[in-house]
Formats: sequence, structure tokens, C-alpha cells
Amino acid sequence: MMQMTATPPYYAVIFSSELLKQTDGYESTALEMVEPAKSQAGFLGMESIREENGKGITVSYWKNLADIKEWKAHSLHLAAQSKGKSEWYDVYQVRVCQVEKQYGFSLCGK
Amino acid sequence: MMQMTATPPYYAVIFSSELLKQTDGYESTALEMVEPAKSQAGFLGMESIREENGKGITVSYWKNLADIKEWKAHSLHLAAQSKGKSEWYDVYQVRVCQVEKQYGFSLCGK
Repeated sequence: MMQMTATPPYYAVIFSSELLKQTDGYESTALEMVEPAKSQAGFLGMESIREENGKGITVSYWKNLADIKEWKAHSLHLAAQSKGKSEWYDVYQVRVCQVEKQYGFSLCGK
Repeated sequence: MMQMTATPPYYAVIFSSELLKQTDGYESTALEMVEPAKSQAGFLGMESIREENGKGITVSYWKNLADIKEWKAHSLHLAAQSKGKSEWYDVYQVRVCQVEKQYGFSLCGK
């Protein structure tokens, strides 16, 4: 799980999606996106959960809005977005948010 | 998936968690929280994804920060939070965010 050292304010992109039943190449492309995203300026972290039914939430964290814009316009990411719309996603929703505060709990820290 | 009619700005609470292996009563309590949350002032929606390995992301959406505070202090929710720490969660992280913009895609809307 994503426990970052970043302190607010920073940004989160909530990507909620439902995959189609047939998604050839989705998994490999999703994996191929991880390294270029991590190399992007302002990248703070990412967490992704997907159920067997194809519903998923991925949240990526960024220093500021300009970083998010740059990643959105990255050539590899653009190609993946395009395939996502034409082949993999039934529906998705993107929300760009400013993280204002955070707190957490860890059993180990008790 | 959560496709809301709300337009930004509004708020999102990103709750990332990892459950312990033994979580008696977790599922039923999680379900019992849905109705009181929905009845809360300012509630806009919720989406929740959990993998079989116990990792999950739940995002709830709210009109404003005061609504989030009230739900956090709701008696039923307080009891659930307490059990969550003592019995169910290995670790969790809460992030309170302001949603600044959103966009989406739907195969049906193509």
C-alpha cells in the first residue's frame, strides 16, 4: 500500500474504470506504463486495485498539476489511452484532486 | 462505477487499506455503513474495490469538508473505525482531497 513521505498539498488522480471482458494486451500495456510514469517529473506514487469482475481504481500521486499534464501527454501514455478507448474500457472516470490532508494507521506502529 | 452528476469543486476521501487475514465481522459492518453514509448530508457517492489479497481502495465523494467531518464523527462510523483498528486493518491511509476537474469515457456514449 501507498504510504508516502510526501506531505499535503500535492495532487491525486483517481482513475475509476471497468474493463470489457476481452482485453488482449491490456495487462502488458498497464505494466509497461509503470516505469515511464515513475520516471516522470513530480511522480510521488501509485496504487492500483482491480477485482476479477473488471472493476478497478488506480490512484496516482503527483507534486503538481503540470506534472499530471505532462504524463497525460507522454507519447507512450497517449498510445495506451487510445487503445484503452478503442479496445479495453467499457467506461472510465478521471478525477484530478488536490490532497489537502492525510492520516493513517499501521498495526506495526501501535 | 461512480458516474456522478456533481461538478467540481467537491471533495473526495481516498481510503487505501490492507485487511488482516482474519476479519470476522468486517464484511457485515462495511455493509452496515453504506446506508448511514448515504443518508449523511453532502454525500455524493462512493466506490469500493477490494482484491482477494485484502488490499482495497474506497473513495467516497462529498459536497464539502464539513460533511466529511460529520461522517467521520458519526456514532456508528466511530464504532466501526475503532473495530477497524483493533481487529481488521493491518494498515490504512486516508487522504482528503478537493476534486478540481473530472472527465470520463463511456463506450455507450461513443
